Amino acid sequence: MELVAVVILLALLEYVFFGVLVGRARGKYGVKAPAVHGHELFERHFRAHYNTLELLVVFVPAMWLFGTYVSPGWAAGLGLVFVVGRLAYFFGYVADPAKREIGFGLSLLPVVVLLVGALWGAARQAF
Amino acid sequence: MELVAVVILLALLEYVFFGVLVGRARGKYGVKAPAVHGHELFERHFRAHYNTLELLVVFVPAMWLFGTYVSPGWAAGLGLVFVVGRLAYFFGYVADPAKREIGFGLSLLPVVVLLVGALWGAARQAF
Amino acid sequence: MELVAVVILLALLEYVFFGVLVGRARGKYGVKAPAVHGHELFERHFRAHYNTLELLVVFVPAMWLFGTYVSPGWAAGLGLVFVVGRLAYFFGYVADPAKREIGFGLSLLPVVVLLVGALWGAARQAF
Repeated sequence: MELVAVVILLALLEYVFFGVLVGRARGKYGVKAPAVHGHELFERHFRAHYNTLELLVVFVPAMWLFGTYVSPGWAAGLGLVFVVGRLAYFFGYVADPAKREIGFGLSLLPVVVLLVGALWGAARQAF
Repeated sequence: MELVAVVILLALLEYVFFGVLVGRARGKYGVKAPAVHGHELFERHFRAHYNTLELLVVFVPAMWLFGTYVSPGWAAGLGLVFVVGRLAYFFGYVADPAKREIGFGLSLLPVVVLLVGALWGAARQAF
Repeated sequence: MELVAVVILLALLEYVFFGVLVGRARGKYGVKAPAVHGHELFERHFRAHYNTLELLVVFVPAMWLFGTYVSPGWAAGLGLVFVVGRLAYFFGYVADPAKREIGFGLSLLPVVVLLVGALWGAARQAF
């Protein structure tokens, strides 16, 4: 499970890095806290970061439980696809919100596979 | 703990389903990314989804630790109340924000019981 | 790991308490759901709560994995710094958004140490 842990932590590190970019965009585009609106480019950074937050809440437990009940190796591989997909998503979104689609699919798909796979693996052992 | 895992994963699946409904509402009510405001019905979907995100961050670790330190059976049962409560919350909120109260209580209560119970169980073993 | 669990659950309890304060601010400043804008003081509560959510998504798994692969005692200690830092952050933010900096640093720093430390510890065992 160490490999599963490494990939989970890489995904979290990527997300912290996105958070740093949001903080820099806040300064650059002059959006003062508590506001989160007022400049299109800040909003793109902000939303791309929060969309990653939305998915991480599923990704982390699904990764861990898929690793536990199905296969740690497959969990790690699917997790790496997520990490790469999120990079494409974030920078695609910032460049043009319409360009976020490919990265979105590339990061949503492994999350759904991890989630459904973990559910199948845990249910098989529970019942 | 397999049963605890199954209920956690069901709650995550429900949340992904809510996310799909938010995506459909974005198209239906014409709210273009990165905007998250501009149409009352989109905002209800969006906020109901994010409120579920807010609770899941507590629910998942509290479920797991309650299952570990108190009782996996009770964790699973309380978790199912949460899953049902969230369904009532989401569709209540979308119909009328004032109608979100019952579902909110029904999903907040098991989270608080899991959280306080897990804290009691872990503290009893730690000290 | 019981002590790590206790500190994780304390951080989650603090976050639920912040959520209660957001709910009270919603009533006090007359911001009706699904709106999350319209009164500066409500927005400060709301954003301070959500910023805590942003960090908890990293904090909880990083704490657990740091405890597993590095040291449960250090994990618990760093976790307590986070809990205290978040208190300073929340009440600083509500008083004046410019005053959120110290509490922010005090709660971000332990998260980064837990994250990088856990990554180092897990990677050392994986490779």
